[in-house]
Amino acid sequence: MSENKWVYTFGGGSAEGNRTMKELLGGKGANLAEMCTIGLPVPAGFTITTESCKYYNDHEKSWPKELKAQVREGIAFLEDQMKTGFGDPEKPLLVSVRSGAADSMPGMMDTVLNLGMNDEVVEGLARVTGNDRFAYDSYRRFIDMFGDVVMGVPHEHFEETMEELKQEMNVKNDNDLTAENLRELVDRYKAVYRKATGFMFPEDPREQLHFAINAVFNSWNSPRANKYRSINKIFGLIGTAVNIQAMVFGNTGDDSATGVCFTRNPSTGEHKLYGEFLINAQGEDVVAGIRTPHPIDDLKEIMPYSYQELDALTRKLEMHYKNMQDIEFTIQQGKLYILQTRNGKRTGHAAIKIAVDLVNEGIVSREDAVMKLVDPLHLDQLLHPQLKDEGYDDAEVLGRGLPASPGAAVGKVVLNSDEAEKLSAKGEKVILVRIETSPEDVGGMAASQGILTSRGGMTSHAAVVARGWGKPCVAGCSDIIINYKKRTFTNGHITVKEGEYISLDGSLGIVLLGEKPLVEPSFDDDYHTFMEWVEEFQHMGVRANADTPEDALNARGHGAVGIGLCRTEHMFFADNRISAIRRMILAESAEERQESLNELLPYQRDDFKGIFKAMAGLPVTIRLLDPPLHEFLPHTDEEIIHVAHELQVPAKVMRNKVMNLKEFNPMLGHRGCRLGITHPEITRMQATAILEAAAELHCQGTEVYPEIMIPLIGTREEFHHQATIIHEVAREVFANYCSAVPYKVGTMIEVPRAALTADQIAGEAEFFSFGTNDLTQMTYGYSRDDAAKFMIHYLDQKILPYDPFQTIDRDGVGQLVQWAKERGSMVNPKLKMGICGEHGGDPLSIEFCYNIGLDYVSCSPFRVPIARLAAAQSELRAKARKVTEAPVSAPAE
Amino acid sequence: MSENKWVYTFGGGSAEGNRTMKELLGGKGANLAEMCTIGLPVPAGFTITTESCKYYNDHEKSWPKELKAQVREGIAFLEDQMKTGFGDPEKPLLVSVRSGAADSMPGMMDTVLNLGMNDEVVEGLARVTGNDRFAYDSYRRFIDMFGDVVMGVPHEHFEETMEELKQEMNVKNDNDLTAENLRELVDRYKAVYRKATGFMFPEDPREQLHFAINAVFNSWNSPRANKYRSINKIFGLIGTAVNIQAMVFGNTGDDSATGVCFTRNPSTGEHKLYGEFLINAQGEDVVAGIRTPHPIDDLKEIMPYSYQELDALTRKLEMHYKNMQDIEFTIQQGKLYILQTRNGKRTGHAAIKIAVDLVNEGIVSREDAVMKLVDPLHLDQLLHPQLKDEGYDDAEVLGRGLPASPGAAVGKVVLNSDEAEKLSAKGEKVILVRIETSPEDVGGMAASQGILTSRGGMTSHAAVVARGWGKPCVAGCSDIIINYKKRTFTNGHITVKEGEYISLDGSLGIVLLGEKPLVEPSFDDDYHTFMEWVEEFQHMGVRANADTPEDALNARGHGAVGIGLCRTEHMFFADNRISAIRRMILAESAEERQESLNELLPYQRDDFKGIFKAMAGLPVTIRLLDPPLHEFLPHTDEEIIHVAHELQVPAKVMRNKVMNLKEFNPMLGHRGCRLGITHPEITRMQATAILEAAAELHCQGTEVYPEIMIPLIGTREEFHHQATIIHEVAREVFANYCSAVPYKVGTMIEVPRAALTADQIAGEAEFFSFGTNDLTQMTYGYSRDDAAKFMIHYLDQKILPYDPFQTIDRDGVGQLVQWAKERGSMVNPKLKMGICGEHGGDPLSIEFCYNIGLDYVSCSPFRVPIARLAAAQSELRAKARKVTEAPVSAPAE
Repeated sequence: MSENKWVYTFGGGSAEGNRTMKELLGGKGANLAEMCTIGLPVPAGFTITTESCKYYNDHEKSWPKELKAQVREGIAFLEDQMKTGFGDPEKPLLVSVRSGAADSMPGMMDTVLNLGMNDEVVEGLARVTGNDRFAYDSYRRFIDMFGDVVMGVPHEHFEETMEELKQEMNVKNDNDLTAENLRELVDRYKAVYRKATGFMFPEDPREQLHFAINAVFNSWNSPRANKYRSINKIFGLIGTAVNIQAMVFGNTGDDSATGVCFTRNPSTGEHKLYGEFLINAQGEDVVAGIRTPHPIDDLKEIMPYSYQELDALTRKLEMHYKNMQDIEFTIQQGKLYILQTRNGKRTGHAAIKIAVDLVNEGIVSREDAVMKLVDPLHLDQLLHPQLKDEGYDDAEVLGRGLPASPGAAVGKVVLNSDEAEKLSAKGEKVILVRIETSPEDVGGMAASQGILTSRGGMTSHAAVVARGWGKPCVAGCSDIIINYKKRTFTNGHITVKEGEYISLDGSLGIVLLGEKPLVEPSFDDDYHTFMEWVEEFQHMGVRANADTPEDALNARGHGAVGIGLCRTEHMFFADNRISAIRRMILAESAEERQESLNELLPYQRDDFKGIFKAMAGLPVTIRLLDPPLHEFLPHTDEEIIHVAHELQVPAKVMRNKVMNLKEFNPMLGHRGCRLGITHPEITRMQATAILEAAAELHCQGTEVYPEIMIPLIGTREEFHHQATIIHEVAREVFANYCSAVPYKVGTMIEVPRAALTADQIAGEAEFFSFGTNDLTQMTYGYSRDDAAKFMIHYLDQKILPYDPFQTIDRDGVGQLVQWAKERGSMVNPKLKMGICGEHGGDPLSIEFCYNIGLDYVSCSPFRVPIARLAAAQSELRAKARKVTEAPVSAPAE
Repeated sequence: MSENKWVYTFGGGSAEGNRTMKELLGGKGANLAEMCTIGLPVPAGFTITTESCKYYNDHEKSWPKELKAQVREGIAFLEDQMKTGFGDPEKPLLVSVRSGAADSMPGMMDTVLNLGMNDEVVEGLARVTGNDRFAYDSYRRFIDMFGDVVMGVPHEHFEETMEELKQEMNVKNDNDLTAENLRELVDRYKAVYRKATGFMFPEDPREQLHFAINAVFNSWNSPRANKYRSINKIFGLIGTAVNIQAMVFGNTGDDSATGVCFTRNPSTGEHKLYGEFLINAQGEDVVAGIRTPHPIDDLKEIMPYSYQELDALTRKLEMHYKNMQDIEFTIQQGKLYILQTRNGKRTGHAAIKIAVDLVNEGIVSREDAVMKLVDPLHLDQLLHPQLKDEGYDDAEVLGRGLPASPGAAVGKVVLNSDEAEKLSAKGEKVILVRIETSPEDVGGMAASQGILTSRGGMTSHAAVVARGWGKPCVAGCSDIIINYKKRTFTNGHITVKEGEYISLDGSLGIVLLGEKPLVEPSFDDDYHTFMEWVEEFQHMGVRANADTPEDALNARGHGAVGIGLCRTEHMFFADNRISAIRRMILAESAEERQESLNELLPYQRDDFKGIFKAMAGLPVTIRLLDPPLHEFLPHTDEEIIHVAHELQVPAKVMRNKVMNLKEFNPMLGHRGCRLGITHPEITRMQATAILEAAAELHCQGTEVYPEIMIPLIGTREEFHHQATIIHEVAREVFANYCSAVPYKVGTMIEVPRAALTADQIAGEAEFFSFGTNDLTQMTYGYSRDDAAKFMIHYLDQKILPYDPFQTIDRDGVGQLVQWAKERGSMVNPKLKMGICGEHGGDPLSIEFCYNIGLDYVSCSPFRVPIARLAAAQSELRAKARKVTEAPVSAPAE
């Protein structure tokens, strides 16, 4: 083996690579090698490594010095295996050139078939096969593909030329063109090529191959490939491999065919070969949809022997790969070839069924089923209603926005939150449509089936609240313009009035006119079986972020082992409370302020009792008031006058207060524990409500574990100030009840300084909850509400590999979290630590949390099963890594 | 010596302590011990350690167990030394009880004199001294002080009682009361005491002492003491010591006196004894101002022998302490006692003169003069005009605000920036008075003598800009209400019209009615001599933050070795440019945008040429555009209409743009390099202007060292994106000139993530400049514009030890800076690093920068000498530490 090996061959029952070498050979190359080795009928070929691609892109598009010779040797290997000659008209070798990265990126990179063809070879091929039509058809396909893929000649130019010829010949289908016609077409295609490129079509097969390989290398950095990787969070790959494989032909006659099949039904999971094929066709015809393919079952009758062989081989592949396979095959003159196999994409429903079936069939272990066969995103599908998959007209699309919260919703348009509440109370299904939402809209949002906003990003108020509630939301849909006065919105073509039906697809970010049918989520036995297995391997806790007893119960039903974040501010917005909190803000004396807080106390106590009951026996982390006080006041002059009237204060007083509380950067303003320190009476009231609720239930025999969380701590002294108040309240409260209740006082770690001084804070705190939303805002200096404006550029230009509000930034934010974890544990080994930002529901982030040793993640109730699966997978992967990494002779620990 | 020693005695020519033990004995105690040892006539005494105070405050106000016995031994020592008895009427020992912490906190803690007095002792004292009046006067003073200081009986109650008696006796002065009257007064004082406290006045001297010691311990944590420490940035002390010292009496007759003197004039530095004294009086009389004291010169005639002795002793003290001393003395029946010595407070002018004189007199070395004799704050005084020190009526005080930028200013009130510019152009001196300022006011601010705002904190726009320019500013003066329409402002009593004169004291935050006389700053020979010495010991560079050639020249004159931060945004606000930048923002096509930028290019190029010329031969760090674009647009509807008209665009278009660019948290929004990435044409224009300016001058023979700084970097990719543009521009520009210019591209480190990933960024950057203003904002999550609302609570309640925007927070922000410094240097050892936040002008922060090894600090031109002195002091202190810490036998390095 030379020191720099860039090429790996396969064929004739053996291969230089195998399935474990995906990083180097790409998925396709590794699997072709593997299939060869296990004896499947795979046409011989060789794979140019991903490292070659990296070298090419790193060195101004030049090849590593050994590559040319190694490609030549690869071709020699193929000639030897296939007993053919590259460019030899007597026994022509044609090859396919395909891309294939370590992660599947279907359709994202380029393929050239029939390479090796030229004016001489085509004649030879016609002679050897005795099939002129096939030979010229293959040739014109090659010129088209080569021109399109390698030289950027638009495919349409070739299409038009063929259409012209068909009109001249007065025929309708491609198949109706004769060999003679096709020979004419080849000439015309060459003219198209010459005109578009300025060059003659290259006749030298080796030159063709060189160009094609470069084209694949180049396709790695095409905008669509970058975009695909960004959307699908594929990071860290170095390039694509290039697979050069001897062509086999499904288009040599009626004893030939080509097709695609799945070992199980990818929609339902049903254990039955599923797929389709075309007689006398090449692979791309199946995809192109020129002819309607046969369902795979038809092959049983048409080619019974091949069907049996296919059935056996695909079973063998499934057993071998221990996963449902997506297989490409070609039958050339009755002989079956397997051209590709890969794990098949599937729906959430199918994923669960296939996993459970494969375990029951004894093909995979439960560990593997949990670790490999179901993606957390599969569960996301299962957990939300979906639009019934029946397509829709473009004309019905009112607009596209951000897929801010998954699932689908249907309802009548309402442009005002109060109205939404009213209609919903009457049993109407409504969709709340707003320019953007604010905390005052939560009532209307809760009452709606889904939310549509014309402004705001993935982390706008609407998006965050909707995801928390598992409610579909399309945010920032700038295609529509809302007119509150006229009570309509329009996309410029269609104007929708309040009361008309629309449908939202929050998973895709699409807004449709009219009432579309929905498929409700359902949890069958397979789901429950699978989640039991998940539970077996999941040791890191999953809690939920929930503010109401309903949400808490929902989360508990999905397997949450506690509440990781119960926000208290939403509780202040209910009608009868908002007035009290507003009076508190406007109070001119400490007594007046106390009076308003006294009014709120019983409400808060009841809120907490409800949640404690729902979570009996499990810990509930309650965050003290976090938002700045101005969020509770009206904003527009109209609202100010209205509210002032309601509270019986002069509008001027209200207006002055609103002005006084106005902040330049509310995110970095007077909120969180800063409020609790300047207004200790608020902390006192909330602590009283929490601890009285806990004590009351405790004395009635309910197990309660309140954990009081102080927000926005940045210094030890802040924590000490607030914790002192809470401990004082506890002493006072418990003196009036049957006994003390075990409770904890801890903090959010969401300000960078808190992470940096975690060792100081850990001296007093009993738990840390990483508020990674705010921590990300401050570590990057990105305002979630404003970042959309540049974030889209950043993702497009690969300045950011992904949105750090969706997946935790390990290098920056993660470093702070890890630092705080380590420093905190050193000072206080009993410190309980978890994460309650939205990252708590993101699988990649969950894996990070597991790896650094957090005790739990907390996410919205609807993401609890997803987080549980992600946690189990993280644990299993870590275990697998340990096994791999452990030296063989290591003593058992 | 017992294991726990809480008490240290001094007297009779020796002492258990010495001057190095300030931490343990407090400044006063350490100096008393020292003075004893060097043979000064100090009444004997003992010092209870600061550790005792800490113990007391840590253990619920109880004494360490050995303390009682040690105090008893201390009293026995005094009795032995003074040949007297505590509570013994035959030979009474009276003592003073005084506080004294390691750092001087004058007037902040409590003192009790004449302790040990009771009904029997007073009679004995009268007998022994043959002076009834003196004995009873001492007694009534003791009851007053003890009642006030120890038991919290208001001093006024005693005063009133004395006034009553004086009226009854029909006398005018205290001195006119007879011994008999004073005996009556003692009885009445005891009644006052009993009524207020509910207890009899304690007759037992040991009980009196115990109470008094506790009172001093308690005074450590009094609100005023906490406040004083907070204002004066005194941190890390554990408590106060208590000094118990035998009383000597300046009030036993006309051969007795008491006084205070400085070894040199504290206002001018003149080398001549300076101070005052009172015949037949106790120390507090001098302070209380009941009688007018004599100037110290008079003592020469009244008590020539004592004067000579005092003169000799004070010289000895100054030689010994190598610093100007502030001395308290008492003459008892012709015998001189020294009660206290400490380094005297002095004006900036005096500090410089004294330092230079002491060096010239051979008393101190140049090192010590630089390290110890001039405080950076002394220079601050010297560098700004001051109000002439002649006092003012409270009636003239219009309001008090934040001392936002030091120095004094006088001028006519103007409420509008344009008006300010106009009047100033006519030669009028104006003060700009605004509710708050915005970047559009910079023209008016520059034209004004000083700035007054009614809203905003120490780091508001007005404050930051004013400090940068060394222009006096009083910010956030909420005492006044501004009425733009009526063109007046009022404090509720006085209404000031536009055009009337006011005076500002920006060092104290005071606004005065009328035109007060000013003293202009002057730099005499002593100043220049002193700054030469500073230069000798200062190796860390001091650069300036300067945006104009004038500022740059000013900074260079003060010794700046480069520009550390040249902001480019101010350059966009000049009249002829703001329209171009607005057109750029409103542009609908790339061409239109480019056109506006092309218009700006020559202006920018000229700006940079001016600064490069001013700084020829020195590096100039230029920051690319930083603020969000909306800062360049008008805000109010009126302004929008006006500007739209000017630019000939529909107001609606302008309004929409303003709305579109509006941000919830502009601080965390679309600014800094985020702008440069979404609008690369701006970066390109600025880089072109900088590099063309540099190349043009370079080719004319001027040495230029441009350093282009990219703001708000958070990721390596951002840096790469922007640096690539700059390098491209450089290649293009230099191709048109005589040769390439050496230039650097670096970044602000101001986003926490940049500090966390400094190793990644250092791979490409050539310098780091720590923007600690923003870094502090994001690390704490404090918006500078909003933090004032809670900051004041935080400082009051000791949640923060100091304002982190003034002095760098070492635990949090400092940790990030240090981390970035270390990681950055590891990757790129040539990386140049400095700080350009406002901390660059703060001595404590400068010491931190020196200690972690930054190459330079950069501050406003007016703070350059201050920063240079602070840098020199940091270096000398570090050197001194090294000498102290180095083991004796260490080999020379």
